Amino acid sequence: MNGTHPRNNTVTLADYLLTRLKQLGIGAIHGVPGDYNLELLDYIEPAGIRWVGSTNELNAGYAADGYARIKGLGALITTFGVGELSAINAIAGAYTERAAVVHIVGTPPRDSQDGRKMIHHTLGDGDYRHFAQMAAHVTVAQANLLDPRTAPKQIDDALEQCVLHSRPVYVEVPVDVVAVPVPADRLESNIQISQSLPSSAFEAAITKLTERLYAAKQPVILVDCETRPLGIMNGVRQLIESTKWPTFTTSSGKSLVDETLPNVYGIYQGRFAEPETKSFIDNSDLVLFFGPHQSTTNSYSLTALPAPDVTIAFTFEGIKIASDMHRDISTKQALDHLLDNLDFSQLNTEATTNVDLPRGRTVSYSDVSDDQEIKQDKAWRLMGNFIRSGDILMGETGTAGYGVREMTLPPHTRLFTPTTWLSIGYMLPASQGAALAQRELIEASNYHGINDARTVLLIGDGSFQMTVQELATIIRHNLNVVVFLINNDGYTIERCIHGLRQGYNDITPWRYLAAPNFFGASEDTYLGSAKTYGELKQVLQDKKLTNGRGLRMVEVFMDREDAPVGPLMDLLNKQKDKEG
Amino acid sequence: MNGTHPRNNTVTLADYLLTRLKQLGIGAIHGVPGDYNLELLDYIEPAGIRWVGSTNELNAGYAADGYARIKGLGALITTFGVGELSAINAIAGAYTERAAVVHIVGTPPRDSQDGRKMIHHTLGDGDYRHFAQMAAHVTVAQANLLDPRTAPKQIDDALEQCVLHSRPVYVEVPVDVVAVPVPADRLESNIQISQSLPSSAFEAAITKLTERLYAAKQPVILVDCETRPLGIMNGVRQLIESTKWPTFTTSSGKSLVDETLPNVYGIYQGRFAEPETKSFIDNSDLVLFFGPHQSTTNSYSLTALPAPDVTIAFTFEGIKIASDMHRDISTKQALDHLLDNLDFSQLNTEATTNVDLPRGRTVSYSDVSDDQEIKQDKAWRLMGNFIRSGDILMGETGTAGYGVREMTLPPHTRLFTPTTWLSIGYMLPASQGAALAQRELIEASNYHGINDARTVLLIGDGSFQMTVQELATIIRHNLNVVVFLINNDGYTIERCIHGLRQGYNDITPWRYLAAPNFFGASEDTYLGSAKTYGELKQVLQDKKLTNGRGLRMVEVFMDREDAPVGPLMDLLNKQKDKEG
Repeated sequence: MNGTHPRNNTVTLADYLLTRLKQLGIGAIHGVPGDYNLELLDYIEPAGIRWVGSTNELNAGYAADGYARIKGLGALITTFGVGELSAINAIAGAYTERAAVVHIVGTPPRDSQDGRKMIHHTLGDGDYRHFAQMAAHVTVAQANLLDPRTAPKQIDDALEQCVLHSRPVYVEVPVDVVAVPVPADRLESNIQISQSLPSSAFEAAITKLTERLYAAKQPVILVDCETRPLGIMNGVRQLIESTKWPTFTTSSGKSLVDETLPNVYGIYQGRFAEPETKSFIDNSDLVLFFGPHQSTTNSYSLTALPAPDVTIAFTFEGIKIASDMHRDISTKQALDHLLDNLDFSQLNTEATTNVDLPRGRTVSYSDVSDDQEIKQDKAWRLMGNFIRSGDILMGETGTAGYGVREMTLPPHTRLFTPTTWLSIGYMLPASQGAALAQRELIEASNYHGINDARTVLLIGDGSFQMTVQELATIIRHNLNVVVFLINNDGYTIERCIHGLRQGYNDITPWRYLAAPNFFGASEDTYLGSAKTYGELKQVLQDKKLTNGRGLRMVEVFMDREDAPVGPLMDLLNKQKDKEG
Repeated sequence: MNGTHPRNNTVTLADYLLTRLKQLGIGAIHGVPGDYNLELLDYIEPAGIRWVGSTNELNAGYAADGYARIKGLGALITTFGVGELSAINAIAGAYTERAAVVHIVGTPPRDSQDGRKMIHHTLGDGDYRHFAQMAAHVTVAQANLLDPRTAPKQIDDALEQCVLHSRPVYVEVPVDVVAVPVPADRLESNIQISQSLPSSAFEAAITKLTERLYAAKQPVILVDCETRPLGIMNGVRQLIESTKWPTFTTSSGKSLVDETLPNVYGIYQGRFAEPETKSFIDNSDLVLFFGPHQSTTNSYSLTALPAPDVTIAFTFEGIKIASDMHRDISTKQALDHLLDNLDFSQLNTEATTNVDLPRGRTVSYSDVSDDQEIKQDKAWRLMGNFIRSGDILMGETGTAGYGVREMTLPPHTRLFTPTTWLSIGYMLPASQGAALAQRELIEASNYHGINDARTVLLIGDGSFQMTVQELATIIRHNLNVVVFLINNDGYTIERCIHGLRQGYNDITPWRYLAAPNFFGASEDTYLGSAKTYGELKQVLQDKKLTNGRGLRMVEVFMDREDAPVGPLMDLLNKQKDKEG
């Protein structure tokens, strides 16, 4: 019996793959049908996974990314060539910002591939490997399931890489291999995710780290966005609560810690920070920097990065103490070890508990006058009053992406904000995926005890036009999404950068509030519109908006030459000076 | 003065590039603004080129492709990373089906590139070459304009490759090089497109070719789609008229010859052809095969290809006589030489002029009964009555792409039909680009003496959803586009292939006729709707539709389990048998 398997312990390759995805928490797969993936799609609903037919593949990719950032892992299925290439920009974004997305591509039958046949969805040159080579640039592992004998192991290996790095992987499934039986025995246990082993390096790093913690006189905690893919959000929260040390986030780290805690001071804005804040951080002798992601756009042009010599950074590569990178150490293990073993009474809390640094100021409904036009200096904080615990808040690249940074968020909210990839059009489909993940978590009673929550999208008109049809998917799956469409007449973020009044930054004016009806929403879908603060306040407090279900949409008018205070406003003022 | 240039004979690099594009016939550039291309966009309108701000980059790519297939060359400008990757599927399609598209990408300043800075729109790994490496798979030449000293030559070389191969090229313009002066002297003459030189191989091929032509007893001319990019459409037409030999096209070659000529018999459909036609071609002793593009989807699964031993193929690689490929011979030169030197009186016309092979049957308005629901067996030919000389007809992948093959087209029409890439969503933005090119040709009095023409898009609901927002660009530029939206409740072409009644082939039902209003069209935009032949006939003869201007839209309802007779109907019947 060597080399054979008992016949009754097999599953189809499709079922193997889908079972693995389900074991890892996947409840829904996004994608678009195409003739090389149809057979695979047959297996999805029977496997107990929801099929989300997106309106196009780029949107499917963005949605899978949004889903992954909430649930930890997302998946999409596209077809060879045309489908996968349409999604590749979304995959690149997931790679850059660490969303764990499994990109499954239905490929032509092996016969066609071996025969280099000139079939549709190829470049016509007989080379079937072009697209996989392109995908390799933006995925952390690739598996081409040509051979059912090795396919289960290939699937497991790719998924492990996806989980470990929280980055996309690329899985090719030839259409004629979908139903081939493979051994099922591996499925009896979950995929083994390899762990860093205990080592003397680990001990040494912990020792050094502990010394620095005990010695710190003016310590600071700084939380960046890779805290999420590192899987250390809970540990970091515990540390913040236990140490009571002054805590800041980066712009993309915002919402990963509870901003309502007394020792949490919001976003550290570098050269845009209040002088006391900047001075406090500049004079700090220890910065615990969790999940750093040091792009210029995520660090106020590198000015919000702590001084390297006082920094201990918890990263995917290891723990970096000043300039010494300690590799092959799990940040999660190290953090857990600290939380279990640290003598918190030895930490310096005195020097920091009396600190009272500036905080983001809220804007209440009584702070604005009703007949005034809506302006970017207060609009975002005013809209912040709308956000409730459990909500997911999505601020699209553009003025919205800067504006959402100003809102003080309740606990258990999650913020999506532009970080590095900054692909406009991302947020709308991502809000579809995020809202679906949110609903799945609520249904599984795994959402902080919250039973009702919304996904709130703030998006400019230019971005909205890019991927607008994904509203149809939100409608079809009856997702709780509230869209605030900022109508400011074009690409204001580009106007801030260059071409303030150039025609190329204009867009076609749409009748935006006609969108839900066009895309098939019921006739009683909530629609709101606001040009003044009075109108905006009324809308924000309308029970049909706040407590409604499904898609709701509000059009908020702002001036085309207005931006949130901070980097964008600085750029805008320079452009205005130039143009006169 | 060696090595220097007179200072007064310079232009900016941007102007150099744009002047070259204009010299090659570019009147409009598609694209989306992004912060690495804004400076370049400043130069477009001043250069006398129209800027078409598309709603997203994939649509811009499709539109540039549609424009290129009508005017010979198209261009789009995207931004680094996010923009270019969104467009890459369109570029791959242009590569596969030979549309000459210049893809210009605005890239980060050279300082950032040299410093491997972690800025936005990069993958964050310091490697700025990923996207160019991806683009190299789907472009025939690449130019990275890092050095203004060599930039003019690089531009000329890339554009020459684009024209020679009628395939996309990739040009990177760092944002800080846009305004740098470069020598202008090359601009005084047009780009030199290298030509194949006269040679003994040329003479030998012509001799063999001429012998075969004179000897042919039952010759046939077969015109395929690469006749267009080869630039031999006029020569082929002359040959058809001079020889009067029986002429067929492939499905994608349709409209490249005048179907109303007595010796033109429409599409040769291989195993779906009428028996007399198949027998005639099978017994032919010479097939002149112009611009072959031998994908399975373009050849009725290879059954519509002529027997190799009787075939003389005029291709990009050279002239292939039976199995002998004669390389380094220009097909255009060879064809021109034949037309100039052939003694047409020596050709066998007798054996072929008396031939009377079956032709596509038209369906006139009196052939259908008014109260009957619209069915695919007659609908397309009925809609064929709508098409006028000069129209561009676009049949999107799906039932429409097969349906348009049944229409008999007036002279000077141009048909877009799925060939090999088959990316659904292509046709709507491509119709925007094609309509713009059509208008430019009419304005230049270079459109067969025709002063008024329309671009007519036939598209299924599933495809329509993919790229729908490009209707806004059609509206904004007031292009003459008539959209027939086939509402058959989902991806019928996929239902024909697999999953006849599976949920994954369903789509969200939209209120399709609300589209023009949503996207900003004027309130009096023509909207029509037809469920019966009577309604369809009325719409098709409505003067507001036939002679109106700008966007017009008609929703045509058909059954979800219906397809044109031929390959799709065969597949559908198999699925129906399977499902019962």
